Amino acid sequence: MLRDATTRAKDGALLEMASRLVKEEGFILSENKKDLDALNPGSVTKSYIDRLTLTHERIESMAQGLMQVASLRDPVGVITGTWKRPNGLVVGKMRIPLGVIGIIYEARPNVTADAAGLCVKSGNSVILRGGSDSLRSNMAIGEVLKAALESFDLPTEAVTVVPVTDRAAVLHMIKLDEYIDLIIPRGGEGLVRFVVENSTIPVLKHYKGVCHIFVDKSAEVDEAVGICVNAKVQRPGVCNAMETLLVHKDIAQGFLPKLIEEMTANGVELRGCPRTQEVDSRVKAATEDDWYEEYLDLILSVKVVDDIDDAIAHIDKYGSMHTESILTSDYANSQKFLTKVNSSTVMVNASTRFSDGFELGLGAEIGISTSKLHAFGPMGVEELTTTKFIVYGQGQVRV
Amino acid sequence: MLRDATTRAKDGALLEMASRLVKEEGFILSENKKDLDALNPGSVTKSYIDRLTLTHERIESMAQGLMQVASLRDPVGVITGTWKRPNGLVVGKMRIPLGVIGIIYEARPNVTADAAGLCVKSGNSVILRGGSDSLRSNMAIGEVLKAALESFDLPTEAVTVVPVTDRAAVLHMIKLDEYIDLIIPRGGEGLVRFVVENSTIPVLKHYKGVCHIFVDKSAEVDEAVGICVNAKVQRPGVCNAMETLLVHKDIAQGFLPKLIEEMTANGVELRGCPRTQEVDSRVKAATEDDWYEEYLDLILSVKVVDDIDDAIAHIDKYGSMHTESILTSDYANSQKFLTKVNSSTVMVNASTRFSDGFELGLGAEIGISTSKLHAFGPMGVEELTTTKFIVYGQGQVRV
Repeated sequence: MLRDATTRAKDGALLEMASRLVKEEGFILSENKKDLDALNPGSVTKSYIDRLTLTHERIESMAQGLMQVASLRDPVGVITGTWKRPNGLVVGKMRIPLGVIGIIYEARPNVTADAAGLCVKSGNSVILRGGSDSLRSNMAIGEVLKAALESFDLPTEAVTVVPVTDRAAVLHMIKLDEYIDLIIPRGGEGLVRFVVENSTIPVLKHYKGVCHIFVDKSAEVDEAVGICVNAKVQRPGVCNAMETLLVHKDIAQGFLPKLIEEMTANGVELRGCPRTQEVDSRVKAATEDDWYEEYLDLILSVKVVDDIDDAIAHIDKYGSMHTESILTSDYANSQKFLTKVNSSTVMVNASTRFSDGFELGLGAEIGISTSKLHAFGPMGVEELTTTKFIVYGQGQVRV
Repeated sequence: MLRDATTRAKDGALLEMASRLVKEEGFILSENKKDLDALNPGSVTKSYIDRLTLTHERIESMAQGLMQVASLRDPVGVITGTWKRPNGLVVGKMRIPLGVIGIIYEARPNVTADAAGLCVKSGNSVILRGGSDSLRSNMAIGEVLKAALESFDLPTEAVTVVPVTDRAAVLHMIKLDEYIDLIIPRGGEGLVRFVVENSTIPVLKHYKGVCHIFVDKSAEVDEAVGICVNAKVQRPGVCNAMETLLVHKDIAQGFLPKLIEEMTANGVELRGCPRTQEVDSRVKAATEDDWYEEYLDLILSVKVVDDIDDAIAHIDKYGSMHTESILTSDYANSQKFLTKVNSSTVMVNASTRFSDGFELGLGAEIGISTSKLHAFGPMGVEELTTTKFIVYGQGQVRV
C-alpha cells in the first residue's frame, strides 16, 4: 500500500513522473488537441478554452511542480511532539496518511498531475474525476503517472483517473464514504455547492474569496497604496485578490485620492460608499450586493469605516473567511486584527496575494479551505495527513 | 462572543460553575429524582438507571472535572509555530475556536457539565441535546452553568440545553450546518449511526472499540500477563478495554497457560482459535463473528498468529481503529507496530486502558474519534480548536 511506501520510492516516482511527462509531451499534446477539437466553440468562453489548453510550457510547469513536491519533506511517520506522563508513559503524535482522497475538478488538466503528486507524497491514494471536456488529456496524464509508479514498484491504482465524467458519476463517487476519506472539489461555486450538498464524505473546500484590506489610520500611505494596487491588480482573477477595501475615516483624505489615482491608472473600476464618492466623482455608488461580491475582475468596492471595530464588523458580516490584511503601524491594532478576524489567513502589512500554499511556505497547495474542520486556509502535504497517538510504555497498567 | 472572552473570565466562570453545582446539589438531585420517578422500571435496565442517577459523589466529580478544565492551558490564541519566507514574511498558525459544537448524548447527565466545560474553555458555544429520560436533570445543570457564565458577563447562550428531546429534534439539529460547526454524538452505536447517516454537519465519533493486544514472541511473560489482565478486567465495560488477544505462536506455550489461568481466576470467559483451544480445554471455540465483537464484558477472544505481520493483518481486517498495543522486547517490532498499525492510538508495552484523554495527558476528553478527519483518537480542548494562518509582513507585495 502507498501508505507504507518509503520516502525514497515516493520521491523517485515523483521525479520519474516529471521526466516522463516531459518525454511524453507529444502524446499528451495530441490527446489534448482531441479534447480541444471536440469542443463546441460557440458554447464555451475564451478563458475556458485557455484553461483547457496544454502547451509545452504548461507541461514543463507540471513537471517542475512534481519535482518541487519531491523535494518537500515527507510528512508521513513524523512525530510532531511527545510528552511524558507521571507514570512514565511517553505519549506522542505521529503523522499518517488520510487514506483515499477524491479530487473533483473541471477544465484544468494540470490539476491531474498537481493533485496526484501531493497525494503520492503524503502516502494517500487519489481518485481524480476531471471534467468531460478534458477527459482525454486527463487520461493521458494519468497513464504517464501510473507508468512512473509502476517503475518504482508502487501500486498503480494509487493514482486513478475516473473515465466517466457525467454528473451521475460524481454523485456516485461522493457517496462512497466506505472507500474515500476526503473529497476536495476544485472549480466554480456551482460545482462546489453540488458536492457539499450531496457528499456523505467530508469535503474540504472554499466557495469564494471576498478578501479585504483594512487601511488603518496609522498606515504608511505610499506603502499602503502599493500593497492595495498589488492585491487588486497583480492577478485579479484569483481567489486571493482583494475585492473590498476598508479605509479608516481619519486617513481617507490623505490616502484615497492617491489610491484612486493609481487604481484608475491600472484600469480598476471603483464602487464606493458615500464617503468614498465624496473624495472622487469617478467612484460609482456601491450597492449592498457589492460588499458580498467576488468580482474576480478589475473592480474594487471601497468603504470608509469609523475605526478598526467597524472594519472587523464589516468583514464578519460580508467576508468569506478567506484572507484579510490590515495595513497599520499601530501595535495594538495589529494584534487586535490578527486575533479578532475570523478568517483562514490574516495578515499585517502584506498583500492578500500571498495567501497560497507555495507563498506561505507549504511547498505546494492542494486547495484552500474556508471551513474550520481539519484544515483552515491553504492546504499542503501536511493537511493531507492526520495524526495518531503513539505511546511508549515500560509495562504500565492502569490502577 | 465567547470566542473573544479572556482566559481569566472563562476560567473564572468554570470555577464558578463548579462551586455552584456543589451549592445547588439539593436542586439538582431533586430534579434528577423527578427524572428517575418518571421512568418505567419495566422498560429499562439496571445499568441504564445507574447511568441516569446523580449522587453527591457524582456532583462532586462534575465539579472537580470543571476545576480540572479551568486549570488547563487556554488553547485559544496560542501560536503553534512560525516560519520565515525568503521575502521576509513571518508565517505562523494560531489556534482559534471552532464556533458552535452540538453534543448529542443519552442517559448520563454528567455529560452536560463535562462537555460544557471543555467547550467554554476552548471558546466554543455548545448546544447540548441529552436524552428525554434525563431532561430535568440536564435542564437543572444547564441553569446552574448559565448562572455562572452570567456572573462573569459571558453570554449565557454559549451553553444551551435543548428542551426538546424527540428524534425529530435531533434530526432538525444535525441539519443546521449554517449554525453548528461540529456534532459529537456520545452514546450507543445506534444513536451514533443515526447521527452520522443524517447529519449535514461534520461528525466526530467512534462506533466501538475492538481493542487488541499482540503478545510478541519476545514479550516478558509475567509482565505481559499483568498487562493483558489489566486491559481486560480493570473495567471491561468501556471502549478501551481489550477485546481480542493475539499471541505469537512461538510464545504461546509459555504464555497462554499462565494467561488463561489468570483470566479464568478473574471470571473471564475465553473464546479461542483452534491453536488456543489446544492449550486449555476451558477455551471455547471462537466464531468468525467473535473477531469483530466488542463484548464490553468479561469475555475475551484469543488467536495464535504466525508473526507480527499476521497480527497486523488481523487488526487491519477486524479492528475498529481505536487502540492496539504490542508487548515486545524487540526494537524493530516495536517500530513496525507503531508505524504500520492504522489505529488512532498505538502502544508499546502498556495497557489499552490508557487510551483516554486524561490518561494521555490532554487534561480531559470530549470524546474519541476513530475517523481521521480533523481529530483521530481522544479529543481534548485543542481538538475543539482549529488553526488560522497569520502573516507578519513589512510591506511585502507579490511579484
